[in-house]
Amino acid sequence: MQYADISAELLERVRARAPLVQCITNFVAMDIAANLVLAIGASPAMVHAKEEVEEFAAIASALTINIGTIAPEWVEGMSLAASTASRIGLPWVLDPVACGATRWRTQVARELAAKRPTLIRGNASEILALQADRETTTRGVDSTDPVERAQTAARALAKTYGAIVAVTGATDFVTDGSRELGIEGGDPLMTKVTALGCSLTAVSGAFLAVGDSAFESTVAALASFKIAGSRSALNCPGPGTLRWRMADELHRLDAAAMRSEARLLSYA
Amino acid sequence: MQYADISAELLERVRARAPLVQCITNFVAMDIAANLVLAIGASPAMVHAKEEVEEFAAIASALTINIGTIAPEWVEGMSLAASTASRIGLPWVLDPVACGATRWRTQVARELAAKRPTLIRGNASEILALQADRETTTRGVDSTDPVERAQTAARALAKTYGAIVAVTGATDFVTDGSRELGIEGGDPLMTKVTALGCSLTAVSGAFLAVGDSAFESTVAALASFKIAGSRSALNCPGPGTLRWRMADELHRLDAAAMRSEARLLSYA
Amino acid sequence: MQYADISAELLERVRARAPLVQCITNFVAMDIAANLVLAIGASPAMVHAKEEVEEFAAIASALTINIGTIAPEWVEGMSLAASTASRIGLPWVLDPVACGATRWRTQVARELAAKRPTLIRGNASEILALQADRETTTRGVDSTDPVERAQTAARALAKTYGAIVAVTGATDFVTDGSRELGIEGGDPLMTKVTALGCSLTAVSGAFLAVGDSAFESTVAALASFKIAGSRSALNCPGPGTLRWRMADELHRLDAAAMRSEARLLSYA
Repeated sequence: MQYADISAELLERVRARAPLVQCITNFVAMDIAANLVLAIGASPAMVHAKEEVEEFAAIASALTINIGTIAPEWVEGMSLAASTASRIGLPWVLDPVACGATRWRTQVARELAAKRPTLIRGNASEILALQADRETTTRGVDSTDPVERAQTAARALAKTYGAIVAVTGATDFVTDGSRELGIEGGDPLMTKVTALGCSLTAVSGAFLAVGDSAFESTVAALASFKIAGSRSALNCPGPGTLRWRMADELHRLDAAAMRSEARLLSYA
Repeated sequence: MQYADISAELLERVRARAPLVQCITNFVAMDIAANLVLAIGASPAMVHAKEEVEEFAAIASALTINIGTIAPEWVEGMSLAASTASRIGLPWVLDPVACGATRWRTQVARELAAKRPTLIRGNASEILALQADRETTTRGVDSTDPVERAQTAARALAKTYGAIVAVTGATDFVTDGSRELGIEGGDPLMTKVTALGCSLTAVSGAFLAVGDSAFESTVAALASFKIAGSRSALNCPGPGTLRWRMADELHRLDAAAMRSEARLLSYA
Repeated sequence: MQYADISAELLERVRARAPLVQCITNFVAMDIAANLVLAIGASPAMVHAKEEVEEFAAIASALTINIGTIAPEWVEGMSLAASTASRIGLPWVLDPVACGATRWRTQVARELAAKRPTLIRGNASEILALQADRETTTRGVDSTDPVERAQTAARALAKTYGAIVAVTGATDFVTDGSRELGIEGGDPLMTKVTALGCSLTAVSGAFLAVGDSAFESTVAALASFKIAGSRSALNCPGPGTLRWRMADELHRLDAAAMRSEARLLSYA
């Protein structure tokens, strides 16, 4: 079966099962991430306190961790949730937001990566900083590197942590260290809406919850965003409009569209 | 006077007085709850720190507490705010989000309920978990039970805590332990927009601030959301659109619409 | 050169340089502030933990601090960030949200003001409370005073702290203690969208980052919001629509519009 067909089937599973996705995310993404997880057909739960993350993970179908607006008490909850997920076999995603911007942030991202996430998703600068000694080159949350520059780092990270690594940007790149795929689509206007990457991280949790292969689930999640982004950007007057259209389009996305509009690139 | 007429009058009072509603809510709901409180005509203030909740309660006209994304330091502020409100006679609302999902969360919700809120608003699963020993059955923040299943629990809670209890869902149910009313309307698409229930909790504070009876104020708040939800869902392409339309429709709602479009059910 | 021309040039600089603006803001404003900073052409970074604010300030081009939903650990981060900015000469903005509502909040605002922000932006009630002994008169986050009533306090604050002071409302007022300007425009519907003032604070950081004079940068920031607000309010059905239109209009705003639509008032 082709990846586009698999993606279509996974979307149908998300809709049928409405998996519970535990999201530990940042203050900017809280609203849009929860709304986009709902729009794709899953059920988001924003639960982060160390007093309950362990117990909650037992009823969740996936966990996503995003370090965007961390503070020490949040890192404690993230760490406990990540350890729990790895111990009980719950698929989980790490989003190392702005890794490389400060030493503390880079250290937090690396300690979480060492807990062996199922998927690491970031922009090129974040993936480069997570993999190498690049503390000083990241500039805030927006990538200053093209996706292509981070491919080698992504492969290395995938091997080091046994994770799928997704580098998102103009053309997304996914690798498990051996298999690789590109996902085209979307629109440059998407970079003018904050927390879309963070929301994709949360939505990836929904696909991981229903998939047989983490690589396939990641491809499906990325494809859903590229298609919804392309559709949302048609005749779009600006980023305010694009933001709410993303929820509409993810909600309207169906298996047929996934099959016909996913633009997947093999790196043969 | 009929409840629809009372609801219309209460809406006019909210518009005329613009009551200050102190909202302690979760990170997902912060934005939409504040916007919908503004849209109905009241003034929201998101004030949660234990350093100031007591002093702030003295200038507020109502308080609402939502435990969606709690952490220990937030629970301290909630607890102090709730105690202060009960002591000084300020009407306050408890929204026991995801009560039943974890032991700690259930305990927090019950400790707050014991401080005697004016109104408890939740979905059916939350109301069932708050009332009984149902720690293990709630699944995240979305209800897995129909409203009808929680009616007995709602009545029991109302009597135990001397509170109005509102169970919201396809048809809302309100009880003070003896009087009961149903509110019809809205649209299933509302379940695809996150934090609308949390926002209704905040808006309930606005109606409680101006009402002569907490039961009547609750009915008015629920009716306002059902009407705005029905209107917003007309020819609606998806949840992204529905979300911003809710603010437009609550802003446009007037006494005449409240009188003619509120669909109230007596349980005779 | 006229202020409108300078504002147009500063907008072009923001677009060309995409300055990194470190924003420490409240939970309500997180999403809209980040989106409006992106829409004007800058890059927002929501970084607040005391573990990293100092290091992050070194890569930022401006800092903005908003005390809307403070808690003690947030105040620590704000204080360290403010001290760092003043020490290294980074332009920074203080937004004393709801100053005057509680003693603690007023004290926090004054301690931050004493760290010598480049710009203080607030509504009339906040500016009055920050300047004088007015602890008991502020009512939540919405101003109960007209802009005009705060002009004397604004001048006094400007002299005391060596800061630009902007009082925003129906007609904005800017002073550095000697130079003064009014900015007309916008629409009353803007008061029905929460956190637009907080977002303006964040956007001011973008203009301060590229300007030669803090007074000029402030005028440009205020003018951009007045123009975008006027445009967004045309045939606008309600505050839900206005909210997303603000992002579209700030994104579409160009130098020509800034030149022709900025309505600046000299107080000769």
